[in-house]
Amino acid sequence: MPGRARPAWFTGAVESSALFTIPLWLELTAVAVGGIQGAMFAARLTERQIDLLGIGLIGVLVALGGGLLRDLLINQLPAMVQNNWYLPTATGAALFGMLLFRIFNRLNGLIIVLDALTIGAFGAIGTTKALAWGVPVVPAVFVGVASAVGGSILRDIALNLPIALMHVGSLYAVAAAVGTILIVVLVAFGVPMLIAGIACVVVTTLIRLGSVRWGWSLPEQRAISGWRVWRRA
Amino acid sequence: MPGRARPAWFTGAVESSALFTIPLWLELTAVAVGGIQGAMFAARLTERQIDLLGIGLIGVLVALGGGLLRDLLINQLPAMVQNNWYLPTATGAALFGMLLFRIFNRLNGLIIVLDALTIGAFGAIGTTKALAWGVPVVPAVFVGVASAVGGSILRDIALNLPIALMHVGSLYAVAAAVGTILIVVLVAFGVPMLIAGIACVVVTTLIRLGSVRWGWSLPEQRAISGWRVWRRA
Amino acid sequence: MPGRARPAWFTGAVESSALFTIPLWLELTAVAVGGIQGAMFAARLTERQIDLLGIGLIGVLVALGGGLLRDLLINQLPAMVQNNWYLPTATGAALFGMLLFRIFNRLNGLIIVLDALTIGAFGAIGTTKALAWGVPVVPAVFVGVASAVGGSILRDIALNLPIALMHVGSLYAVAAAVGTILIVVLVAFGVPMLIAGIACVVVTTLIRLGSVRWGWSLPEQRAISGWRVWRRA
Repeated sequence: MPGRARPAWFTGAVESSALFTIPLWLELTAVAVGGIQGAMFAARLTERQIDLLGIGLIGVLVALGGGLLRDLLINQLPAMVQNNWYLPTATGAALFGMLLFRIFNRLNGLIIVLDALTIGAFGAIGTTKALAWGVPVVPAVFVGVASAVGGSILRDIALNLPIALMHVGSLYAVAAAVGTILIVVLVAFGVPMLIAGIACVVVTTLIRLGSVRWGWSLPEQRAISGWRVWRRA
Repeated sequence: MPGRARPAWFTGAVESSALFTIPLWLELTAVAVGGIQGAMFAARLTERQIDLLGIGLIGVLVALGGGLLRDLLINQLPAMVQNNWYLPTATGAALFGMLLFRIFNRLNGLIIVLDALTIGAFGAIGTTKALAWGVPVVPAVFVGVASAVGGSILRDIALNLPIALMHVGSLYAVAAAVGTILIVVLVAFGVPMLIAGIACVVVTTLIRLGSVRWGWSLPEQRAISGWRVWRRA
Repeated sequence: MPGRARPAWFTGAVESSALFTIPLWLELTAVAVGGIQGAMFAARLTERQIDLLGIGLIGVLVALGGGLLRDLLINQLPAMVQNNWYLPTATGAALFGMLLFRIFNRLNGLIIVLDALTIGAFGAIGTTKALAWGVPVVPAVFVGVASAVGGSILRDIALNLPIALMHVGSLYAVAAAVGTILIVVLVAFGVPMLIAGIACVVVTTLIRLGSVRWGWSLPEQRAISGWRVWRRA
């Protein structure tokens, strides 16, 4: 379509070297939330004899797996191997979560809120990192969603369970997707990265919490069943 | 063995910067075939409550997972994040395949043919991409086979099923392996890439379809059982 | 903490371009041990119809999967695609292990010893490769452990089994972790790489064999259960 300008978000020419970043202490807090969550999830599997190493590995996968998927998808050195703090934080938080399971279990509401903030932040970080490395907008959103929810996917694969987020349940990846689409649109319209990132976190968190509170979910897979009737008409 | 020239296919010195490529529209058609197939596979799992997101993810894994494995194995930026079209095509085709399941189910023969062509093409693309990046011939064949069948492996892992192609059944990876070995041999003998690639697609497709038609399969694992007798002799 | 010098192992400034390497023939022997082990593991799954391709793939995953994870984690071209020998050795050894299952089964003690040496060597190779590419010490240990035990993780995922090393059993990853931590400490103190590497292999092997012999294991996951009592006090 020569002569007709396409919008930047369509051509994927959203150029942005700006990254949405959060301070290391905040990132490590998010990592710790992931580690604690991983341990709490594993604690339900009492019939299996998961040992301390297994808990540590689940913590690493939940907390750092999304970032690992992100960096594999954009062919960059994974952030988790660039810094001495990520791995001990994730494993330490997981062991802490295991020991204090009864306390954290009572704080479940708080953990759901912290987790919702975390997937919002990881989605924003992932999408803007992908854009900064020249990834077009559609896969940049995919990379952001993978950053946000990849940890839960790797957790389920490691525990030999069906991947929870592929099944009917509260919205998780959808919340991250809406937030990351928003950030791409805002950046394409020239909104400063900090504001776009915060908007992404807020929207993701609201959708996630609304979904938990009011039971929003995606419909189950379903084929159109009326063909016979329709063809008769 | 100094002084004795080894053939190029042995030393891995098959130098080829030529790629077997197909036009984007054809590649997107292959991606769509993968997405539809993924949805048709998931449709059988009616006892699970797979939702629309799960169908979309299965479509992405089946259609784009082979290329992702290929690019991870050769440490290149995955093709799926370089272009805005791959991901929407894969997810869209999967949702389409889900809705029109009854129609596609009746077209099963056509889909098996299209899939056979697809694994032939993905094998040729993967092997020649690996050769072009300097990978020796044996791992280049491996990369080609991973491109061709990686999607079905990732599908089974994501659905928490045993990996189908590791079990006795119609030939799938074997068809891709014969085709990709053929392409390496032909390129080593100086055959132009286009002809070698087409030969790979044709041979892969014929083996795959022959296997489906006549029930060819690899034997089940089996240890030599006659040791006691043999040792007595 | 300006003005206060931190030890090198803490800041991650262990600079080492030296690699602990072993001759190719020794590495291929380790790969073959992995392939045979993979086949022996798969041979127990008699109720599944695993075919020859499945055995070959298990051999590749067990023998080369750890190195693949290592190279993905440090974003380098995987070693397995840089050389024509790795893949045929792994698949050949797996098919050999399948055919001669009864013989290798009687040599189980020998195979456990060879495997213990292998995880020691792979841990040392992985950690020093990570250090050489600038990875800080903590993730370098993680990369080394992933090199050592990654094959068994990928094996279990491919076979749709719970990951063995996450569950109570003889020490495996722990042995690799102690060995790789030792190598990092020794290198930080200026010990030559060859000696540090050999120390890693020896320590890993001793812990692994001691664990098999005397049944050492990590405790199962467990929450602190005395909170109610404690809060009453």
